[in-house]
Amino acid sequence: MFFASDNSAPAHPKVIQAIVQANQGYAMPYGADTLMDSVRQRIRDVFEAPEAAVYLVATGTAANATILSVLCKPWQTIFCHRNAHIEEDECGAPEFYTGGAKLVLIEGENARMSPEHLEKTIKSAGRGGVHNVQRGMVSLTNSTEHGAIYSADQVAQICDIAKQFDLPVHMDGARFANALVSAGCTPAQMTWKAGVDAVSFGGTKNGLLGVEAVVFFDPRHAWEFELRRKRAGHLFSKHRYLSAQMDAYLHDDLWLDLARHANAMAARLSSGIQALEGARLLYPTQANAVFASWPRAGHRQAHKAGAAYYFWPFDQSLEGPDNENLSARMVCSWSTTPKDVDEFLAVAGG
Amino acid sequence: MFFASDNSAPAHPKVIQAIVQANQGYAMPYGADTLMDSVRQRIRDVFEAPEAAVYLVATGTAANATILSVLCKPWQTIFCHRNAHIEEDECGAPEFYTGGAKLVLIEGENARMSPEHLEKTIKSAGRGGVHNVQRGMVSLTNSTEHGAIYSADQVAQICDIAKQFDLPVHMDGARFANALVSAGCTPAQMTWKAGVDAVSFGGTKNGLLGVEAVVFFDPRHAWEFELRRKRAGHLFSKHRYLSAQMDAYLHDDLWLDLARHANAMAARLSSGIQALEGARLLYPTQANAVFASWPRAGHRQAHKAGAAYYFWPFDQSLEGPDNENLSARMVCSWSTTPKDVDEFLAVAGG
Amino acid sequence: MFFASDNSAPAHPKVIQAIVQANQGYAMPYGADTLMDSVRQRIRDVFEAPEAAVYLVATGTAANATILSVLCKPWQTIFCHRNAHIEEDECGAPEFYTGGAKLVLIEGENARMSPEHLEKTIKSAGRGGVHNVQRGMVSLTNSTEHGAIYSADQVAQICDIAKQFDLPVHMDGARFANALVSAGCTPAQMTWKAGVDAVSFGGTKNGLLGVEAVVFFDPRHAWEFELRRKRAGHLFSKHRYLSAQMDAYLHDDLWLDLARHANAMAARLSSGIQALEGARLLYPTQANAVFASWPRAGHRQAHKAGAAYYFWPFDQSLEGPDNENLSARMVCSWSTTPKDVDEFLAVAGG
Amino acid sequence: MFFASDNSAPAHPKVIQAIVQANQGYAMPYGADTLMDSVRQRIRDVFEAPEAAVYLVATGTAANATILSVLCKPWQTIFCHRNAHIEEDECGAPEFYTGGAKLVLIEGENARMSPEHLEKTIKSAGRGGVHNVQRGMVSLTNSTEHGAIYSADQVAQICDIAKQFDLPVHMDGARFANALVSAGCTPAQMTWKAGVDAVSFGGTKNGLLGVEAVVFFDPRHAWEFELRRKRAGHLFSKHRYLSAQMDAYLHDDLWLDLARHANAMAARLSSGIQALEGARLLYPTQANAVFASWPRAGHRQAHKAGAAYYFWPFDQSLEGPDNENLSARMVCSWSTTPKDVDEFLAVAGG
Repeated sequence: MFFASDNSAPAHPKVIQAIVQANQGYAMPYGADTLMDSVRQRIRDVFEAPEAAVYLVATGTAANATILSVLCKPWQTIFCHRNAHIEEDECGAPEFYTGGAKLVLIEGENARMSPEHLEKTIKSAGRGGVHNVQRGMVSLTNSTEHGAIYSADQVAQICDIAKQFDLPVHMDGARFANALVSAGCTPAQMTWKAGVDAVSFGGTKNGLLGVEAVVFFDPRHAWEFELRRKRAGHLFSKHRYLSAQMDAYLHDDLWLDLARHANAMAARLSSGIQALEGARLLYPTQANAVFASWPRAGHRQAHKAGAAYYFWPFDQSLEGPDNENLSARMVCSWSTTPKDVDEFLAVAGG
Repeated sequence: MFFASDNSAPAHPKVIQAIVQANQGYAMPYGADTLMDSVRQRIRDVFEAPEAAVYLVATGTAANATILSVLCKPWQTIFCHRNAHIEEDECGAPEFYTGGAKLVLIEGENARMSPEHLEKTIKSAGRGGVHNVQRGMVSLTNSTEHGAIYSADQVAQICDIAKQFDLPVHMDGARFANALVSAGCTPAQMTWKAGVDAVSFGGTKNGLLGVEAVVFFDPRHAWEFELRRKRAGHLFSKHRYLSAQMDAYLHDDLWLDLARHANAMAARLSSGIQALEGARLLYPTQANAVFASWPRAGHRQAHKAGAAYYFWPFDQSLEGPDNENLSARMVCSWSTTPKDVDEFLAVAGG
Repeated sequence: MFFASDNSAPAHPKVIQAIVQANQGYAMPYGADTLMDSVRQRIRDVFEAPEAAVYLVATGTAANATILSVLCKPWQTIFCHRNAHIEEDECGAPEFYTGGAKLVLIEGENARMSPEHLEKTIKSAGRGGVHNVQRGMVSLTNSTEHGAIYSADQVAQICDIAKQFDLPVHMDGARFANALVSAGCTPAQMTWKAGVDAVSFGGTKNGLLGVEAVVFFDPRHAWEFELRRKRAGHLFSKHRYLSAQMDAYLHDDLWLDLARHANAMAARLSSGIQALEGARLLYPTQANAVFASWPRAGHRQAHKAGAAYYFWPFDQSLEGPDNENLSARMVCSWSTTPKDVDEFLAVAGG
Repeated sequence: MFFASDNSAPAHPKVIQAIVQANQGYAMPYGADTLMDSVRQRIRDVFEAPEAAVYLVATGTAANATILSVLCKPWQTIFCHRNAHIEEDECGAPEFYTGGAKLVLIEGENARMSPEHLEKTIKSAGRGGVHNVQRGMVSLTNSTEHGAIYSADQVAQICDIAKQFDLPVHMDGARFANALVSAGCTPAQMTWKAGVDAVSFGGTKNGLLGVEAVVFFDPRHAWEFELRRKRAGHLFSKHRYLSAQMDAYLHDDLWLDLARHANAMAARLSSGIQALEGARLLYPTQANAVFASWPRAGHRQAHKAGAAYYFWPFDQSLEGPDNENLSARMVCSWSTTPKDVDEFLAVAGG
């Protein structure tokens, strides 16, 4: 009954196995390993993007911040949702990497940017000429921080607005796989065909030990990215161990299978919670996270039974009236079992 | 016959095994895993430093640059050897992380700072008051980029000079273990007892997949370090996989055994090369790297036989007179075998 | 009839005269001129702060950004009003100087921070530990960007909130004199007695050619400030010409006289506009700027007659129905005359 | 007898007069003043560069650092002389503005880069690929920090080397006028015809209160420069007072007359010192600074008579044997008189 974060799940056994297999003899360092050739090809194939520049780093913050620093000047803005990970959970990494770009916050339900508010905000930005920070780029997160997704059309809608102003678009895909299988489109449709310029293609939350791919659909960004990655200490000498993880992840669609499973578990959990007396969803469940509230009595039972998850927001207490609702974030992963879900539901009713 | 870099060696089987074992169930993320408690205790024990702040990152550049950014202000200098890794091989990571500190280069044989030149340079720095970059800190590398080591006394000599000017001292210990077993002193003698304030305690080059510990002997640096690590994208969500590596590394002195082996292989190689006709050492062999020159004919034979190593400097050619010497860097690791060495020596004589 | 900006007014003749007088013989450079001794003493006297660290720079952005960089770490927040100059009109200077601190925007009428919203926002900031940007400091502007002021009590209210969280407070006093004479308190009451830690004490908009004083009430910030000022290129070699301006400004209360005049002209203009048919104020007129709307016909007449001022916001047009209101910002300065105001009012009625 | 620095001299009366004249009525702020139109045209004429982008800032450090930040990426090198002002006297401004570029130091007599050493150093830079800071740009100072000059041919020789590697070239012309009249060439020959891409065109040391022009011969750098200037707080609201200074400076070749006078005074001083018993020049006197040593007895006499100048290096003392030589830097300016020089020479003989 562990629903605190997909970051706490183990790695998939096939990924571990790939690391064991990669541990044979000597390998070229710093990304020149032969496994990386395979990874590069697989990702280009997945995205139908034969020219894409493809790199690996070990954390989502590293992927996001290095991409932003390539696409955005220090005196420009990054338009993103108010609840974006880059705004709320990276301790200012975007500002550090870009040399002080300004995140301009967009409203929107379910942590999805409202196209109207985005357009209005971009329009009103930078009109004071040299006195203002200049329009820079757009960053969206799919799936969102509230467990919703942008469909391919919704991504395109955001990108169309950005393109009106010649702004590049980044997708934070820490949970790209979860969004993709939910949206039912192809990776290409979700990204470059919709107008996305670069993707943080997550793996860590979906079964790896710690690998994210950086994908630039326009390869002219490649060399600058390589220098920035090195300069930030994110170029691994024994790179083969990153390559091995991503290679296993992409092999035989493991990544899609794992995401489908995580989403299915979230759907099961979401349905079950909604059936509890007094429960309600905070946001629609479209990927692997469930945001819901239900009576305190049920939370007490769940905690007593050992269920792990976070209150959302943090500052709620098990102390108080039984029938008052408390809100929670519950995240499923590839390793969540139907039994986990059902045991949880059995106690959470209070 | 692979001597190109210790970065190209595989990880030790016990380390892989530790990762496999760590992959059970759920674990707290971001360094709150229980394995990290063990690592912290082991490192404090190793260094006889019960108060030390201990962290893990995945690359040597990350360890060095984050430490420098904590100990040095943007308007200060970092005194280091002209051939230091932070000067030559990190694409400006120290400047990026510190916000523009200036590396001031010290001369000295075998990539070891000359105490005299260091003292003279510190003295003459920052005398113009506000117009000058201010004296900041000292960084030394042990073992050095040329395969030599600082003994505990030599470290103390450097630190004494730094302390005259109230400057903190960092040790880049990417090959700390190799230096330590060569010096025959304790980790405490090599570091804080000699005056070192913070260490990049390397593991990657000595049998891990990719983990370095950051050790601050003064824990007041802890919180700033944590924020800077996060902000740089070097805080791992699935941190247990870093912890597992370092825990295995420190268990039963594996790290010392691996370093002793690597150094022994380098000594065997060094002796053997010196016995070749026309050969000579460029620098004394005190750790796991051999810098030597010998006739081109021998290099040709070695290359033909499949030996891998770098010319030092790069721009030398196998084309040319047989009896002209070419210089090379050869690095041994925990996985180098006596057979590797002996086969190499058998062909390198030309 | 020039109301576009107090930045477009000439310097006061006494200030020019001071420059002419300062241009005698040789003077020590870089702030070691004897006129600076006088300035330092005058500012300490004005603020009743005998220990204050006092410096001169030439622009308001330089004053603000250097102060912010001393008081705020790169991984911290600066809480300021959504319409603060540091947010809207400095092209990201705070981010540049601080190394990427994050401006967190506070709501409030008349460009004055709402104490309630400030407190709530600070409370909710940084609760995610290392994952979040940390609470840093508060910056308020007096008089505000909308021509209102904070009274000494209102400043104290903001500072009290900041102090609950141990946050330092900066006052952007580009129009400090205008706020002060309007508030009818002492400089000390307006600043350190209320809890302000540092002030950008403006002169440029109130009769100088280009000088702002930086005042830290706690002198321990002095040396870091001096290094940051130099490093930013804001330390003047021929510093006497800055000193001379500020010295004349403070002599015989010239600065207060000029501000009183500017405010009186704004009051005259504000009353007159309010008397126009269909006119209304956008914000209360409490310093030297008037924000008001009145019918387009009056704007047309004013433009025809040569009046200079900005539409607020910019994107309004003289084309359109006569009786529709257009909004404007009108700024008075020491050099605005009653005749300017009255001539304007005579035509702006349409 | 004031020879400490040209920074301590007053401004020329015509410059003061221009400021007085500029102080009439209202003027457009932020460089949109009509005087700036005149300045722009004059500088384009002076340099025979009708397309040049021309800007004003108030300090030499601001001019240098903003130009460097436009021409050099954070991960690149700036090749400059070991004694360059940007290396020694700007408290790390280049590192701050560029986001951490690395100054790589070139040797050479008289603070002039040796073309051979420059070429060798550029060649050996950045050969390690992504691991190394990349080759960036070249910056030379004319006249040099040791009072020598680069002739147009010598500038071209430096630029030719830079161009072999596609590197842009910056000239720090804090004393451009002094170098130019000494070299006897045109401003165009000294700069873009020789291959220079951008110039810090100094005025402060040659009779202004505090103005330097930034000149980019390629106007595509204009907008980025404008944003960086604003973001750094170096865009003046009451810009007309900068324009007025530079306009007067360029009117009727005042700038050249002042530099010729300063150089003539330095030549007179240099000859006179060389005639003193035991005296010798440290570097050739080619512009407005004299570096020389002579017996301590003469220094004592000069100090007693009130002469002001700096020992070079600082740490020499008037205490000691009479006949031991002490070294000094003496700088002449537009305001140095023959009488100053002759009185000094009369006492400095001891």
